[in-house]
Amino acid sequence: MTNITQNVENSFLAQLIQHGLLIPSSVKGVYGRNGIFEDVLTRVDNLITTVGREPGTEVMRFPPVLSREVTEQSGYMKSFPHLLGSVHAFTGDHRQHRELVQDIEEHHDWTHHLSPSDVVLTPAACYPVYAAVAGTLPESGRLVDVSSYCFRHEPSDEPARMQSFRMREFVRIGEPEQVEQWRNQWIDRGLTFLRSLGLNAQQAPANDPFFGPGGRLLAASQQEQQLKTELLAPVNTEQPETAVMSLNYHQDHFAGKFNILTATAQHAHTACTGFGLERITLALFRAHGFDPTTWTAAVREILWP
Amino acid sequence: MTNITQNVENSFLAQLIQHGLLIPSSVKGVYGRNGIFEDVLTRVDNLITTVGREPGTEVMRFPPVLSREVTEQSGYMKSFPHLLGSVHAFTGDHRQHRELVQDIEEHHDWTHHLSPSDVVLTPAACYPVYAAVAGTLPESGRLVDVSSYCFRHEPSDEPARMQSFRMREFVRIGEPEQVEQWRNQWIDRGLTFLRSLGLNAQQAPANDPFFGPGGRLLAASQQEQQLKTELLAPVNTEQPETAVMSLNYHQDHFAGKFNILTATAQHAHTACTGFGLERITLALFRAHGFDPTTWTAAVREILWP
Repeated sequence: MTNITQNVENSFLAQLIQHGLLIPSSVKGVYGRNGIFEDVLTRVDNLITTVGREPGTEVMRFPPVLSREVTEQSGYMKSFPHLLGSVHAFTGDHRQHRELVQDIEEHHDWTHHLSPSDVVLTPAACYPVYAAVAGTLPESGRLVDVSSYCFRHEPSDEPARMQSFRMREFVRIGEPEQVEQWRNQWIDRGLTFLRSLGLNAQQAPANDPFFGPGGRLLAASQQEQQLKTELLAPVNTEQPETAVMSLNYHQDHFAGKFNILTATAQHAHTACTGFGLERITLALFRAHGFDPTTWTAAVREILWP
Repeated sequence: MTNITQNVENSFLAQLIQHGLLIPSSVKGVYGRNGIFEDVLTRVDNLITTVGREPGTEVMRFPPVLSREVTEQSGYMKSFPHLLGSVHAFTGDHRQHRELVQDIEEHHDWTHHLSPSDVVLTPAACYPVYAAVAGTLPESGRLVDVSSYCFRHEPSDEPARMQSFRMREFVRIGEPEQVEQWRNQWIDRGLTFLRSLGLNAQQAPANDPFFGPGGRLLAASQQEQQLKTELLAPVNTEQPETAVMSLNYHQDHFAGKFNILTATAQHAHTACTGFGLERITLALFRAHGFDPTTWTAAVREILWP
């Protein structure tokens, strides 16, 4: 805590901490939130319900852990091995427990006493959805509203790069044209949503942070095919360079891995619209100041209707 | 999924899944929730705000991960090593990544490529609070409203024993008399709250699930000193045998570990009132049926005011 505030005294992070909005811990990118931060985030979340749900939207909420099997099945470790959190647990007897406690007391590594559990931390809100909708879709496809705490192992002092954060998503699953069209209309829809909150939002072509030398090719291909668009707003600086929303067209990637079929027995296509709930909340504090009671009437009327 | 429903066809869990309230996964005790389940849980959570906050209550919300240091400092691994989830991550280069991917593809264990990260899964909502309030308290002490997703590594088919679930807590920190008195008044307050929801709630002396042969002594001592009281309601069966709330007096245990001092420079005492949000929600479905639109007017007026 002391280190963070000393090193970057006038940074946005330091100001968020000084105003009590974020509560620092000894780990970079892991913060508590106070009641004001949570109130704004909850209101953003409710507004997304209003602007994003369509007739027939199914609501699913998942915990922050996910079956390890899903990670293996989805190919996540091939593309993003550096981001995953794997959950390990102690399953030994009381003799092994004595050794474990001794290692902790002597400040030795104690994690070799643990073994892998059946779960990992959810890396993106939509992952559990694909396993849940496996099988044959109705003709109109499906539209799922999903949200969960996500984890990415990338310790950072940038407040917008938390290790543990909430992601809200709408996931469209169906015929290729249905899905691509749905994804494309979300670009304008997302910009309108963000600008209604007084944010300086811009769109930009983007790619996922694929790992290693092989990852560069995947990223280039994703950009070339325009499979990922990010909506940016100012968070860490005054420039709109932080992705607060992202619109992703997966083609048949997930449907192939999880065996999701259209009514005509083809692999379905999928797309998702993701909202970074902490990032949008931080963008609001960046744009309008640290005290929501002083925000403009236009923004307050939308969030506190 | 098939196994669960076949093995325990008429169980409460099977019924919750059949009604779509819980979405099964391949891991015991890890479920998605549908919109109806979440709506009830959110309303229970809001009601706890109404009945539980007092003037001066501070709101803190923490993510589902916690600094590993806090676990070491709190002595958690001494008492509950079998319940903790430790988070491990891949930090190797692209050569090691190739081996990792090969292990996954050949269905070998791939977790030996990972190393421990700085975080573990939060085992109880109040743990991050003690580190956050370290130092000297104001004269009246502090009262914190905290909530987070918690993890306990205890795979089970009982719906009330999830591995990942939400816990809401009020944490009182101050002089011994202040804290003990506050904890004791919550017994009646908690029973009144639960009974107002039409639940058959009963109190019972309790102990934490301390590990191993040494744990039996700790459990007996905790019971003898009446440090833990649980409020029970019917969930898995028609009998009130599931702890949906728990009231815990820690004496100076946490204040000693985290150096929390009273205004007179003594180690403070702490106590907490915990609400199992999934368990209370499940108790409501057990008591009133699977369709909240059919619940009695008395209960509906409280939750849908």
